[in-house]
Amino acid sequence: MAGSDRFVNQIADINTDYTKWYTDVCLKSELCDYGPVKGTMVFRPYGYAIWENIQAEADKRFKAHGVVNAYFPMLIPMSFLTREAEHVEGFAPEVATVTHVGETELSEKLVLRPTSETVIGNMYSKWIGSYRDLPLKLNQWANVVRWEKTTRPFLRTSEFLWQEGHTAFATGEEANNDALEMMEVYKDLANNVLCLPVLTGKKSEKEKFAGAVATYGMEAMMKDGKSLQAGTTHYLGDNFAKAFDIKFLDSDGTHKYVYQASWGVSTRLIGAIIMAHGDERGLCLPPAVAPIQAVVIPIGAAKNQAVADKTKEIFKALEKAGIRAHLDERDLSPGFKFNHWELRGVPVRIELGGRDLEAGVVTVCRRDTGEKTAMPIADVIKNTKKLLKDIAKNMLRKADEFTKSHIVPVNDMAEMGSALDGGNFCDAYWCGEEGCEDKIKQEFSATTRVFHSDQKNVHSHTCVCCGKKAKHRIYFARAY
Amino acid sequence: MAGSDRFVNQIADINTDYTKWYTDVCLKSELCDYGPVKGTMVFRPYGYAIWENIQAEADKRFKAHGVVNAYFPMLIPMSFLTREAEHVEGFAPEVATVTHVGETELSEKLVLRPTSETVIGNMYSKWIGSYRDLPLKLNQWANVVRWEKTTRPFLRTSEFLWQEGHTAFATGEEANNDALEMMEVYKDLANNVLCLPVLTGKKSEKEKFAGAVATYGMEAMMKDGKSLQAGTTHYLGDNFAKAFDIKFLDSDGTHKYVYQASWGVSTRLIGAIIMAHGDERGLCLPPAVAPIQAVVIPIGAAKNQAVADKTKEIFKALEKAGIRAHLDERDLSPGFKFNHWELRGVPVRIELGGRDLEAGVVTVCRRDTGEKTAMPIADVIKNTKKLLKDIAKNMLRKADEFTKSHIVPVNDMAEMGSALDGGNFCDAYWCGEEGCEDKIKQEFSATTRVFHSDQKNVHSHTCVCCGKKAKHRIYFARAY
Repeated sequence: MAGSDRFVNQIADINTDYTKWYTDVCLKSELCDYGPVKGTMVFRPYGYAIWENIQAEADKRFKAHGVVNAYFPMLIPMSFLTREAEHVEGFAPEVATVTHVGETELSEKLVLRPTSETVIGNMYSKWIGSYRDLPLKLNQWANVVRWEKTTRPFLRTSEFLWQEGHTAFATGEEANNDALEMMEVYKDLANNVLCLPVLTGKKSEKEKFAGAVATYGMEAMMKDGKSLQAGTTHYLGDNFAKAFDIKFLDSDGTHKYVYQASWGVSTRLIGAIIMAHGDERGLCLPPAVAPIQAVVIPIGAAKNQAVADKTKEIFKALEKAGIRAHLDERDLSPGFKFNHWELRGVPVRIELGGRDLEAGVVTVCRRDTGEKTAMPIADVIKNTKKLLKDIAKNMLRKADEFTKSHIVPVNDMAEMGSALDGGNFCDAYWCGEEGCEDKIKQEFSATTRVFHSDQKNVHSHTCVCCGKKAKHRIYFARAY
Repeated sequence: MAGSDRFVNQIADINTDYTKWYTDVCLKSELCDYGPVKGTMVFRPYGYAIWENIQAEADKRFKAHGVVNAYFPMLIPMSFLTREAEHVEGFAPEVATVTHVGETELSEKLVLRPTSETVIGNMYSKWIGSYRDLPLKLNQWANVVRWEKTTRPFLRTSEFLWQEGHTAFATGEEANNDALEMMEVYKDLANNVLCLPVLTGKKSEKEKFAGAVATYGMEAMMKDGKSLQAGTTHYLGDNFAKAFDIKFLDSDGTHKYVYQASWGVSTRLIGAIIMAHGDERGLCLPPAVAPIQAVVIPIGAAKNQAVADKTKEIFKALEKAGIRAHLDERDLSPGFKFNHWELRGVPVRIELGGRDLEAGVVTVCRRDTGEKTAMPIADVIKNTKKLLKDIAKNMLRKADEFTKSHIVPVNDMAEMGSALDGGNFCDAYWCGEEGCEDKIKQEFSATTRVFHSDQKNVHSHTCVCCGKKAKHRIYFARAY
């Protein structure tokens, strides 16, 4: 029975075909679908609801940080992109270009924003006049377009949804601090909303954002030991200020360029949730973002009105208590429903049958462990609330243990190769030369992710690749 | 003093130059700015916050109506547009086309969605299989692009923000009912959130949506007597179902086309708020969407710490009571601040000076009437809440009186001409021929807006234009 019920979900085995498992989970849990144009995707209601919950949690944190929302045009003159040399080099190959309206050719080529530093820089140069206008901290929730050759739902699609914060300050120190502080905000979001442990730190020159002075990243380990860049913050120095002439009159009477930061997280976070927490039965959603936190399933309700009534009563009480609940009254077998909601990663399942009702209990099953407990009906609301907290805690703990146990110190290329093939991150010393990054990428398809938080005594070590004196301790990993 | 303070806002006179007044209010209250590409606009934080409040109120109502959110790709194959003959005819001239990515030409031309019936129709044909999948009621919050020759902030820009609901049903009756019901939802939003009286009804064939069987509109009267189409709902029949092969297996075992509706409101609503409620001092915002509902202004706080402390206390108490409050502690004159917040349309201003504090009172000024009242400090929270409700009620009542007093019954073209020139809507009888609509448009730049709710005895009247027997009672107006 369990075997045949499991078959209903028809998802590939997570242990033998992780790639197909991912696609199966995305499509069969109805998170998303493929759009008609190659590389595009549709966010179906279940997937979009996760994004809405992430948005609400992130937006609250941004506002507490003094950020306000705005919205800038999606269409940017191509000439804007070229004003910052590194920026255009990084983005030009993947920008989609609008040349015509109806049958009429536009006088200037426009690009669909791949990111908005340029158009926002242009506006900041109009809006910022004096030191009194600083700091300026704006964010926008928007769609962006980056044409990628290889695409995967949530992880890499030609259009995706994100937020991009753009801040301007009087000094470089403040702007760099903003990039660091926002990384802490992102880390809090990852840990405490998505139950996602992350490694945070500065990125190498090669891996930084096109146009930034420094990029900070948070990297999350997926269950195949690959890394997913889950968010980045950038210290932009005065690069865009110089390109867009963003100056202010300082209190000392002189005109100065502003210093900027930018930072973003995207719908990739949904991919991270799927791959960090999912298992052989499908999704396992963090309670804080689960569209349905508790599903109530009557057993044999067709023949037992009291069961139907009591499950409805429990459902309503859950909703009233602020729990996102769903009552599955469909005329389908309990086994089918269990699989249906397990595939969709609902954190808590509450079952009630005739015998349960007679005994005054419900059976509560938690998705993260599969553990089933009978509990008095009178306690179900209080216990569900507690359970949701426990589940979040346990999901973070489990993912954290997994991550920690899959970081391997490596001293040479042979060790790195086997660590990567074993599904691990590499904790390595590195000379700092891009040549070594290139060689490692070529040989192992691995890249530097972020600098290690502990840079003590790096000079007493040697580079994992060339054997020369090390300058940094850094994580190497294969990445999505 | 009052005169010179007023001058600070530097907005054109609403009575002599309504067009410039509108632009001045938009820009000087910092609702928005012009984007770098002609016809684009930037939503500045104050303007975007209004949209966020409208979104929250609308989204709540949609969800109560059984609608869930999703997100569909912005890029649509040009070939999709051409599948519905009227649809492509209506939209092709104003669609922006993407032809290249980087230097590479795309194999198929893509358009930026002007609306999403086609791409959603394509997905619905995949998702809908059986009568059990119906009704399907999805909505998306998105940006759309329609290239317009003449543009104005909020009213007509090449990119704008909106929501578009797309629903599918087993029968035409249900789909048409959905269009009618959603119009009631929009009317509720207009009246009870935006304080905006609206005329609702069916649109003429000429004015309906490209691809619809019937379009219902809500029209709001602006202070110059012109109409603003504030929202539309469409009964699409099986037009898109046939174009995209959206069929379901009915319970009787036969395959049938679905029937659809779609409906949308956009950031135009912000334009409606500005023009229906604004006055010679600037914006006058409906309390439900005002980013700041009450501003607290200390008077002489620099020399009186007790005033500074008490205003902060009042501000915090307002926030705690769930009122969106702002404390203006800037080192600027009270007169400057009064103008600043009046221009920005903040519904309630609370002033506290040294003498007020001694007397234990605050001065409360309401934006809609300009009325000032002294009230005990202890009552300020309770009274502000009540005042916000009163203001909303009064704003709706005032706009409703204005609208009703500017609808003029007209019997012939001469009467119509003078009614329109006098800043009125025309309540007219019409033969139903497009020729008469064309003639009226040519002569007076006026169009049919919506059918009158009362169609009794129309046949005993004659057409306002050609004098033939009337078939309809309908509103004619100049429109934005």
